Formats: sequence, structure tokens, C-alpha cells
Amino acid sequence: MSTRNAIELAVSTVIFALRPEGEEAVLSIPLVRRTRDPFAGRWALPGGAAEPAESLAETAARKLFETTALRPAYLEQLYAFGDPDRSPTGRVVSVVYWALVRTELADEGVEDDNVRWFAADDLPDLAFDHNLIVRYALWRLRTKMEYSRIAHALLGETFTLAELRRVHEIVLEKPLDPANFRRHIEASGVLVDTGETVPGGRHRPPRLYRYDTTLQLADNGPLTPPKEPQ
Amino acid sequence: MSTRNAIELAVSTVIFALRPEGEEAVLSIPLVRRTRDPFAGRWALPGGAAEPAESLAETAARKLFETTALRPAYLEQLYAFGDPDRSPTGRVVSVVYWALVRTELADEGVEDDNVRWFAADDLPDLAFDHNLIVRYALWRLRTKMEYSRIAHALLGETFTLAELRRVHEIVLEKPLDPANFRRHIEASGVLVDTGETVPGGRHRPPRLYRYDTTLQLADNGPLTPPKEPQ
Repeated sequence: MSTRNAIELAVSTVIFALRPEGEEAVLSIPLVRRTRDPFAGRWALPGGAAEPAESLAETAARKLFETTALRPAYLEQLYAFGDPDRSPTGRVVSVVYWALVRTELADEGVEDDNVRWFAADDLPDLAFDHNLIVRYALWRLRTKMEYSRIAHALLGETFTLAELRRVHEIVLEKPLDPANFRRHIEASGVLVDTGETVPGGRHRPPRLYRYDTTLQLADNGPLTPPKEPQ
Repeated sequence: MSTRNAIELAVSTVIFALRPEGEEAVLSIPLVRRTRDPFAGRWALPGGAAEPAESLAETAARKLFETTALRPAYLEQLYAFGDPDRSPTGRVVSVVYWALVRTELADEGVEDDNVRWFAADDLPDLAFDHNLIVRYALWRLRTKMEYSRIAHALLGETFTLAELRRVHEIVLEKPLDPANFRRHIEASGVLVDTGETVPGGRHRPPRLYRYDTTLQLADNGPLTPPKEPQ
């Protein structure tokens, strides 16, 4: 039994939000400064040891909240990282989740000397293999953004088509043609016109939309697999 | 530290192969009969405790070989299953892999009273949450079959278009139009005509093809992420 106990099981989360920076929004992730060795002083993903009484997703959401005071709009398992050399002080297997936090909430999160938001594409040298983990989470986010409705979880309940397109542009790091984007989204049938427009005195105020079903605040792993292709 | 040590970390693998049954091939998985409680006598996925000195994928491949005498043509992490109630005798988190084994090798595997192949869609009531795990692995296999070249790992080095189509039909459980399938595969540009034909005295022997790159005998997780969509 000693071999089993020699492996620590940890849970960490890559948290994405769009945060304003001047006129623009930046895809950002909160990091925690390590106060202990190994890697004391370096920034790392929020997380900690797995808890026997919680599911892995519950531990991820709890650690996320304890560290950042945020609750995710979307949470999904990313990967179990288990390279034998990823920690210098012993074997640690980390089950990593990734999460999306809504824009309007991202500013409510705690930020102090030991918790700070960083631009996802401009990170310092992180503890352990956390740079690799963030790169993989970015790849997953971008892949998923192409074919599912997760942009929702980075916006508020309602949004304009221009806001939705901008989220896609920021995450995918490429400009999207407004007319093509509108056609693509309308053809997908996932948006509902709320009948409302952006408040203000403009001549032609933009319409506000919402998604027609609520995305699950949940792991979309084996317990709720996406529909099979027909 | 006691909370960490109260969680066991295991590695299991869902192994798929096409095995002949009469005239037809059947998508099959090998299972192991448990000789100890919990679930003594029930069938379960091959696996065991994680080993501190091995990566998770190495442990998966080793356990797979020790149990079935097979080596996978494809191996990928599926999911970390961590429900607190999935084992009646304590908390076990299982990092599960899924593997493909080539048809011609599947018959070389060991089979005895405690290791046996089952049709993937006709399993008994398995130990732990292993029925759920197999359902999820089947969903992943079918999803992946639609857009990548993993059928390769269920066939030999070379194959006819009819054989390749038949693999897709068996895994996807639906008939595919031969002409459409041929057009789709040719348009994808992934097949190479070997210039050879099926041996034998037929008037128009079928051509033999192979894939133009070798699939990795590896986890295609974060260390070798697929290309980003452009």
C-alpha cells in the first residue's frame, strides 16, 4: 500500500474571464503566489489537495471560490497531469479543471499581493508545469469556442451580437467578419432575441440576445456526455 | 496529510478491438474477473494502483500488457473518475485511459477463466462504475472516429477501402454508402495507395491503402495537442 500513499492527488483550475484593460477586454486568468517551497514566490494555478468527501469537480469549485471569491459559469475537467517529474518534492498527480467566469463578476474577485489576474497570453514563468497546463487549457477553450456555446459563460445573461462576436475574436485571436458571424450564429439557432435593446438614446440601439438554454454549471464529462453525432 | 493518503489513485483502461464472430467483426473489450472484494467475481476493466515511478500512460500500458499480453496501437487519457461513492471500501480516484488494439493482434491476447473478451454493446453488470466508464469511452471512440484517423489502429498496416468502411460501420453502428465513403476519404487526403492489391486470383482485386503518417503510440493530451483549427 505504500506505493499508493507515495502519490499525492491535487486538484487545480485554470480560470478564464474577460477583463477590461483600457478600451479593450483581455482574456485573463487569476493566479496565486506560492508562499512555500517548492517554487516559493512563483505564481501558480489555484488549487490544493483532493478531499476524500468531495467529488473532484466540487473540490475544484471550492478551491476556486476560496482563492478568488468567484463562482464559475462553466466548469469542465481538462486533464490529469501525472508526469513523475512534475514536482521536485515528490509525486503529485493533478486533476486539472478549466472554468469560465462571467465578465461582470470577474471584477468582484479578490485581488491582493498573492492573488492577481494575468493576461492569458502573457504569463510569467509559473510553478511546476503550470505554463504547459495553461497552454493546453487555452487550446481546449479555443477548440470548444468553435463549436459550442460556451461564449455565454464569459458574457452576462444578455448581450449584443457585437459583444458576442468580440468575445470570439478575443479568444480565437482573429478578426471575424460581422456579416458572416451574424449569419453563422443565426443559422445555428441557439440565440433568442429578447425583444429588448441596449438602453440609451441611440437612434438604432443594438438588440439584446440570450442563449435559448441555460448552460450547465457542471462538468460535461461522462455523467452528461454531449449528444452523439447522428 | 491524512486526507491525501485516504485517497487511492488507480489507473484503468478500456481496450477496444474488432474481433471476428462468425462472418462478422464485433467491437469488443477485454475484461478481468475480480478475485477479491469489493465486487469479487464480477468483471472489471484491467487496471490497478498508480505507480510513483511511472507516468499515468505508462502505468496504463503496462497494466494492459500484464493483463492481456496486448500492446495498444493507440492510447489516450479518457477521464479522471472521482465520485466519492464509486467504491464501497474507500475513496478511489481512477484515471482511465482508452486504447485501440489491432485486429490481427487481438487474437494473440491471453484469454482464460479470468480474462475474457466481451462485445462492447453487450456487457454484464460490471464492478464499480465501469459500465458508465465503458459507455463514455464508446462515446469518445465514436466521436473521434468521425473526424480523425484512429480507425487505423483497429486495422493492420494496409487495408482496402471496404475494410476501412466496415470498421466505421461497426463502430458507428450505421451503414455507410460506399461511394460517399470513398469520396469522403479521398477528399480527406489521408490515405496513400500502396500500389498493391489484395493477393489472390480475382479479376479486379481491391487496392490496398495505408495512412500517410503513422499514428502516435501515445497519449494525444497536452504534450502533443492536435493542431488548432485555423
